Amino acid sequence: MNNIYVDGMGGDNAPSEIVKACVDAVNDFKRKIHILGNEEAIKKELTKYQYDVNLIKIIHTSEKVENEDEPAMVIRRKKDSSMVVGIKKLKEDPTGVFISAGSTGALLAGGTLLLGRIKGIQRPALTIALPSEKGPTLLLDVGANADCKASYLVQFAMMASVYAQNVLDIKSPKVGLINIGTEPNKGNELYKETYALLEKSGLDFIGNVESREIIESKADVLVCDGFTGNIILKLTEGLSSFIFSSLKSALMESLRSKMGGILLKPALKQFKSKFDYKEYGGAPLLGVKGGVIKAHGSSDSKAFYNAIRQGIVFQEKNILEQISNKIVEKQQL
Amino acid sequence: MNNIYVDGMGGDNAPSEIVKACVDAVNDFKRKIHILGNEEAIKKELTKYQYDVNLIKIIHTSEKVENEDEPAMVIRRKKDSSMVVGIKKLKEDPTGVFISAGSTGALLAGGTLLLGRIKGIQRPALTIALPSEKGPTLLLDVGANADCKASYLVQFAMMASVYAQNVLDIKSPKVGLINIGTEPNKGNELYKETYALLEKSGLDFIGNVESREIIESKADVLVCDGFTGNIILKLTEGLSSFIFSSLKSALMESLRSKMGGILLKPALKQFKSKFDYKEYGGAPLLGVKGGVIKAHGSSDSKAFYNAIRQGIVFQEKNILEQISNKIVEKQQL
Repeated sequence: MNNIYVDGMGGDNAPSEIVKACVDAVNDFKRKIHILGNEEAIKKELTKYQYDVNLIKIIHTSEKVENEDEPAMVIRRKKDSSMVVGIKKLKEDPTGVFISAGSTGALLAGGTLLLGRIKGIQRPALTIALPSEKGPTLLLDVGANADCKASYLVQFAMMASVYAQNVLDIKSPKVGLINIGTEPNKGNELYKETYALLEKSGLDFIGNVESREIIESKADVLVCDGFTGNIILKLTEGLSSFIFSSLKSALMESLRSKMGGILLKPALKQFKSKFDYKEYGGAPLLGVKGGVIKAHGSSDSKAFYNAIRQGIVFQEKNILEQISNKIVEKQQL
Repeated sequence: MNNIYVDGMGGDNAPSEIVKACVDAVNDFKRKIHILGNEEAIKKELTKYQYDVNLIKIIHTSEKVENEDEPAMVIRRKKDSSMVVGIKKLKEDPTGVFISAGSTGALLAGGTLLLGRIKGIQRPALTIALPSEKGPTLLLDVGANADCKASYLVQFAMMASVYAQNVLDIKSPKVGLINIGTEPNKGNELYKETYALLEKSGLDFIGNVESREIIESKADVLVCDGFTGNIILKLTEGLSSFIFSSLKSALMESLRSKMGGILLKPALKQFKSKFDYKEYGGAPLLGVKGGVIKAHGSSDSKAFYNAIRQGIVFQEKNILEQISNKIVEKQQL
């Protein structure tokens, strides 16, 4: 019970950066970690580091999930992959957490199909922390449910509030509804209905938040359907990376700009760190019966270390139980 | 007939920048422009410039649309506003064009309710040109219809293709569907259905385009529902302006960064111009019986001048008639 499972083979930098993150985590937190994946490859990485050998255990798996793999197929066919075995471990050990930088689709499918939902939860939601002026803002759903009902969105807000209170230490998380205008009657039918439900939800609902305000919003939790959330997530990533790469080529254009770039290096570094997802750890799949944390596919050891830390807090704060209690409380009202 | 009407009172910089844009436009294009708005204020601005006085006519209006005004209310109550009178001019003169930097909501409501739709068009769509690597990409709908059907989206693609061919000189416009994955079965029900319809539409459909790829997409036309389009539009604006202002404060942080900033000035200016909406003119409201062009609310004279130029091309190329012909052609298939 209370185990920590790590997908040693998921993400662009596996297994090297994943193994390094695990070593750093066991050294800092003195908790035992189970790494799933190719035993030989993981062992080879482990020889590079100093750590208490009792704290890292390898669970050998023989198959590898590729990014092109159809998610549902992974679950049915690649039963001895680090991803599938890792998720299944949570079935034996419901207080365990599983952290993976592998395929989002496969993790979603696996989490939902293999673990099932917390009783009373209509749909699980993938939740990410966006950088914002005041610190992380949770945005959900970012892709687990392309079609949503208003009642799902209210549950998303409730689950993320529990998470924000416990994992991000925000006493009374403010909830905003992503929308195309600030007035209550704005948006499509789904969003008008959700607005009305959120108003009487008992959550600290601050109203509609337009997408232009996300980064400067006062909200700690922003809810939307999974289609809209995925559009927001990928547009944010695409646009930031396009702007940064354009800036980089502008800096290389002439001798003059290169000199300017050298002088600006520290300021630009600090500027870029504002937009660094690595600080924020992973994205929890809230609502399934298990602690499933998705780390960014391009995670380096620092990003993955933060995702592990997040998984440990998720476990220590009994997020699953708290979500479950909150649902029961709601249903009794 | 074939008149050009300009809302002299709309936008953050009215009437001064609007009037300047009109003067520049009549000097360059030798076409007559009717400016609607407060006669005294407009006259005062006009005294600053040299131009052929026969080419600018003022149509006095006594009321002003405020940004806080409820759009439907504007149409009913502010009947002598530059916005409402301007739209109504197109009823008398269906080959006229009206260009406004005023309230988007009021322009949408006015265009739709006062002018009505081109026969066969189910819904009009607000269309913007996004900066992209290969030049402007048309994105629609960005806010006229929060709830859409698949058939609307196919018509949006068709209208924007006509517009791209004629106004942007793109011979065979490539159409992409905004979505949360590239495979045909991705997205919510609306998008799956739209994908199937676009495939047999006869348009040059290149498939789904994820939001992270918008700026580097090969598509000339990107379609989505008005809720999603508005989210994309405002997130793009919000994020770019946040990144640029963060960059600006990074440059001011120390003496060293200030010096670097001075050296980088030309490169940064060029970098920023890549993201400059001013080059791209206005957003046509496609599908209504009239040439309605929405300029950005913060348009300066250069941006508004480009919107006027766009209105003139819209008129000269008979976009309304061409959309109408295309619809008839479709219905006969």
